[in-house]
Amino acid sequence: MTKDNFQVYPLIDKKKLGQKLTKQEIKWFIQSYTDAKIPDYQMSAMLMAMFIQGMDVTETAALTDAMLESGKQLKFPGKNVIDKHSTGGTGDKASFILAPIASAAGVKVPMIAGRGLGHTGGTVDKIEAIKGFNTALDLETFSEKLNKDGLVLIGQTPDIAPADRLIYALRDVTATIDSIPLITASIMSKKLAEGANGIVFDIKTGTGAFMRSTKDARALGKSLIATSKRFKKKAVALITDMNQPLGQEVGHSNELIESIETLKGNGPKDLTDLSIALAAHMIHLAGIEKTFAKAQKKALEMVTSGKALEEFSKLIRSQGGNAEVINDYSLLPMASEKTKILAHKSGHIKMFDNTAVGLLLIELGGGRKAKADVIDHGVGFTFHKKIGDQVKKGDAILTITHHPHQKLIVESMKERFLKDVLTLSSTKVRTPKLVLEKLS
Amino acid sequence: MTKDNFQVYPLIDKKKLGQKLTKQEIKWFIQSYTDAKIPDYQMSAMLMAMFIQGMDVTETAALTDAMLESGKQLKFPGKNVIDKHSTGGTGDKASFILAPIASAAGVKVPMIAGRGLGHTGGTVDKIEAIKGFNTALDLETFSEKLNKDGLVLIGQTPDIAPADRLIYALRDVTATIDSIPLITASIMSKKLAEGANGIVFDIKTGTGAFMRSTKDARALGKSLIATSKRFKKKAVALITDMNQPLGQEVGHSNELIESIETLKGNGPKDLTDLSIALAAHMIHLAGIEKTFAKAQKKALEMVTSGKALEEFSKLIRSQGGNAEVINDYSLLPMASEKTKILAHKSGHIKMFDNTAVGLLLIELGGGRKAKADVIDHGVGFTFHKKIGDQVKKGDAILTITHHPHQKLIVESMKERFLKDVLTLSSTKVRTPKLVLEKLS
Repeated sequence: MTKDNFQVYPLIDKKKLGQKLTKQEIKWFIQSYTDAKIPDYQMSAMLMAMFIQGMDVTETAALTDAMLESGKQLKFPGKNVIDKHSTGGTGDKASFILAPIASAAGVKVPMIAGRGLGHTGGTVDKIEAIKGFNTALDLETFSEKLNKDGLVLIGQTPDIAPADRLIYALRDVTATIDSIPLITASIMSKKLAEGANGIVFDIKTGTGAFMRSTKDARALGKSLIATSKRFKKKAVALITDMNQPLGQEVGHSNELIESIETLKGNGPKDLTDLSIALAAHMIHLAGIEKTFAKAQKKALEMVTSGKALEEFSKLIRSQGGNAEVINDYSLLPMASEKTKILAHKSGHIKMFDNTAVGLLLIELGGGRKAKADVIDHGVGFTFHKKIGDQVKKGDAILTITHHPHQKLIVESMKERFLKDVLTLSSTKVRTPKLVLEKLS
Repeated sequence: MTKDNFQVYPLIDKKKLGQKLTKQEIKWFIQSYTDAKIPDYQMSAMLMAMFIQGMDVTETAALTDAMLESGKQLKFPGKNVIDKHSTGGTGDKASFILAPIASAAGVKVPMIAGRGLGHTGGTVDKIEAIKGFNTALDLETFSEKLNKDGLVLIGQTPDIAPADRLIYALRDVTATIDSIPLITASIMSKKLAEGANGIVFDIKTGTGAFMRSTKDARALGKSLIATSKRFKKKAVALITDMNQPLGQEVGHSNELIESIETLKGNGPKDLTDLSIALAAHMIHLAGIEKTFAKAQKKALEMVTSGKALEEFSKLIRSQGGNAEVINDYSLLPMASEKTKILAHKSGHIKMFDNTAVGLLLIELGGGRKAKADVIDHGVGFTFHKKIGDQVKKGDAILTITHHPHQKLIVESMKERFLKDVLTLSSTKVRTPKLVLEKLS
């Protein structure tokens, strides 16, 4: 608890004028807001001032610190506790693959994951497609399981960075989400509280990412790494392409099946490559292998040997799920109808509006329009073509998995997909690079 | 009522990014907020975005319009209905002098005035030093009295620009007061609703004004005139000095007495000159005199003939006050003790911190620290010296009128006045110009 005593008005005024806030001022403001001593309307004015005027590295670290200190902080011994954070995108299921790989290689992976946000699905929502899987463990059980199994996956808890939870809810309705300092403090306060000693960041950029431009993604990556270092955590960030879904599948059961297939060695190239790369960075940061090349080899071995798949199976069992799902996909909810979208003309796939893809899934029930909505795990999309692929008129581009009563909505989606989501080019299109940059 | 339907988030987002809001968007936002459909925390985020990113002339006019339309709008026939607005400062009592002068010359003056704000006193608070004077007339009575007497003075009413009232309260606690577009819309929505056909603005600048710099005062003046013209109102703005109190008196009864003396022709030069100048602009805007020079002559005549004083007397009687006060100042509340502050050294008066003067008065009870505070009309300051005057050690600079139980506080004030409020120079100081610029 800080003993400083400031006044709300002069601090808002200071940031409004573009001046720097001190560490003490930021701590006092965040703590007072979390204690309900500052009303929402003053916090939202401050957030808007922070958004427009910006916050430098020291201010961002102070904000992170203040939010971190608002809740419990876990500490794990050993430098092999490594976490991963993805900024989120359409069809991003890499966590289900990289975490078991890293764990099988000896990394301890403490995952506190999110639910769907905006147009993107959430890791917690996806794993809940497995009947019985409990993501609501308390922090004590979380720590025990991490120490024992080396791998655990739970949802956000009010014990971790409650200030972030409150501020995030306010940012979400006041157009103050996409600020690099505010995003940094939000991500880092949670990641630091989880007790990892190193963090691998996957910063998505493109039509399906929150950071549309590589420039913004790079700035966020740099900010996350700077803040990590300030807190003496090892960190690596990959800037990765999100102009199309990662892999072929979008939707909760769809993505789980694709993840399991990838753990079995049958995954699509982009998803496999990215998961291996991220897992290898975790193995390297943990100090298990001396070079990244060796770490990458180790990660691949964990897949080919079946060890990563066994880790995933163990995770499911440990958290109350039915691990039989690994061999019997019919245990997952799956809608009964399949409708194909065929190319309306020939050409080369140039672009998908990947945020629109996420929104179409929500429209089918595979995401929340309002906070209380229940997610339908059984609907989804399978992409048969990727950017750079040549298609002939009549080729299947997408299969929609849906319920019989959704035929009308699916018909309208077909039209909108061809008109608004897909861009075909008459000339050849280069396959996009998956990992654009590495920052450390 | 607008039929447009927008969403809150994208509009905040747009202004946050520095884009221009349309007239429809602004109207919808203000109306929805006034109807309590938009919560305070979203409005305060929007206000901060408006503050930092700015609003252009069209946006400011739309904001004014939206706030104007949130309440009743009076309309008076005839081009001789002219209002005056001062941005406020320490010891500004010019309204009590210029309004009766203009009214005596044939101008109809509809005054809806404010209470004390920040360090400045309020016209309504000051007139209430006269026992029985009723400033809480309804708008119907207000209109009747204006048509009949040509002069009426009431306080703010919830019927006029309720949106401004709500937004002002929020700006007051979120550091979004001193924005020229927001100030413009706040002033103009109220002034336009009062039904005047022309407005004379007195924009204060200096240590006792909200606009500290002449540059800011000029920008506000230009914005007020541009908005007036957009609404087809004649307008003139004077930029005037507020580096020392206007006249010699600060405090409610003190200022009323000084105003009456000025109406009798015995006022201090600065107060007399400014009141005549402002009244002359009102007479000129009303079309009563063809040139400003003739209007000025007319204004002076209204004082020397006693007609302006008679108008003031009529105003007091019309609104329930005891007009005997004009001849018997003992009818006004007045604290019994007088304490002089003497110069601690010789020199030339260079500067007063005029905001500090206002705050000292509040400390004595002559202003509100909290909204519910009752004002003590009987305390005040009399300035014996003005900027440019030479003083010898031991000369009286100020007399404090206070209550016997306030001796200790007055002792501490003496010290603070000499140390923090007054600046003496060893070299000669030029008497500051009163009217710095005229804009029209």
